[in-house]
Amino acid sequence: MLTSVDLKHAYRLLNHGPTVLVGSAHEGRTNVMAAAWAMPLDFDTPKIAVVIDKSTLTRELVDASGMLSLNVPTVAMKDLVMAAGGMSGKNHPDKLTRCRISTQAAPQTGVPLVDGCIAQMECRVLPATAYVAGPHDLILAEVVGAWADERVFSQGRWHFEDADPELRSLHHVAGGHFYAIGEPVSALPVANA
Amino acid sequence: MLTSVDLKHAYRLLNHGPTVLVGSAHEGRTNVMAAAWAMPLDFDTPKIAVVIDKSTLTRELVDASGMLSLNVPTVAMKDLVMAAGGMSGKNHPDKLTRCRISTQAAPQTGVPLVDGCIAQMECRVLPATAYVAGPHDLILAEVVGAWADERVFSQGRWHFEDADPELRSLHHVAGGHFYAIGEPVSALPVANA
Repeated sequence: MLTSVDLKHAYRLLNHGPTVLVGSAHEGRTNVMAAAWAMPLDFDTPKIAVVIDKSTLTRELVDASGMLSLNVPTVAMKDLVMAAGGMSGKNHPDKLTRCRISTQAAPQTGVPLVDGCIAQMECRVLPATAYVAGPHDLILAEVVGAWADERVFSQGRWHFEDADPELRSLHHVAGGHFYAIGEPVSALPVANA
Repeated sequence: MLTSVDLKHAYRLLNHGPTVLVGSAHEGRTNVMAAAWAMPLDFDTPKIAVVIDKSTLTRELVDASGMLSLNVPTVAMKDLVMAAGGMSGKNHPDKLTRCRISTQAAPQTGVPLVDGCIAQMECRVLPATAYVAGPHDLILAEVVGAWADERVFSQGRWHFEDADPELRSLHHVAGGHFYAIGEPVSALPVANA
């Protein structure tokens, strides 16, 4: 159901501001955490920015491996997302089993991509990150592969309105309260730009 | 209608990933542009990250003044947002009039806050920005004042579901196609975190 997304369209997977799951792995350890603070950083080559607290296992694995995945979960996955955001992989080595998260290794980097998500990106951390990761926990990365679920994304466009509402993206507010993405809105084209 | 938001809750104004309007001013010039790439960067003190291309008038004004505002526009403002995103303040010194944008000076910094938005933040650019603004057009800033429309945000929480759908936030996909934020979704609390 997931099909490859042109890298020049990868930014669109995050452009509408969904909450994501961050996948990471290093030397046999694998983790998945939830993050609301992620966004595109560039179009082509595609890059992303994501905030990953330095106290987390994810950060340890990302810093060690130089790789991460961003995955866009659905309304159907709300309890999984909440569990992935609330439980630490440091305290619970069996976190993925407890959270009922399954993953597949990404083709280029081997980083875990999260099953059931409507979009997945495998990313390599940019060297520039060192300047902002220290003080701000801000990780910058290049997207090297991207996939999306054709039931809700095809030909470079989301079309949530044509699909099961359980396949909509989640947008976290606070404390387990999310909004699903809503209805399409089109603006008038701009004259004399 | 806009009331002050506790700075510790300011991140919630952006947490669900809305498209924003960026306000800027320097030496008598004022501009407003649309940006989909903005997110919270820290809770308390609250900070934000936003991508502002170095070719824009906004970037020139932000670099010169060290200040900016982030404003969350509504479905009712979709054509204004599209116009603000598609028209350059460099080519059109009367951009704000053409785009029917009116602003008010923020109390601490004087930066323009955009009328009609459901949330407004006045921000001071962080010194660290120099490291990422050059290569990545990524501006980091501290939020020094925040306001929201109590019809959709009160007691630290969005409640779009209780209000006119025209007051919902916009989430840009591409080329003038947006989604409005949708319906609330609550997850189960996490045991044994």
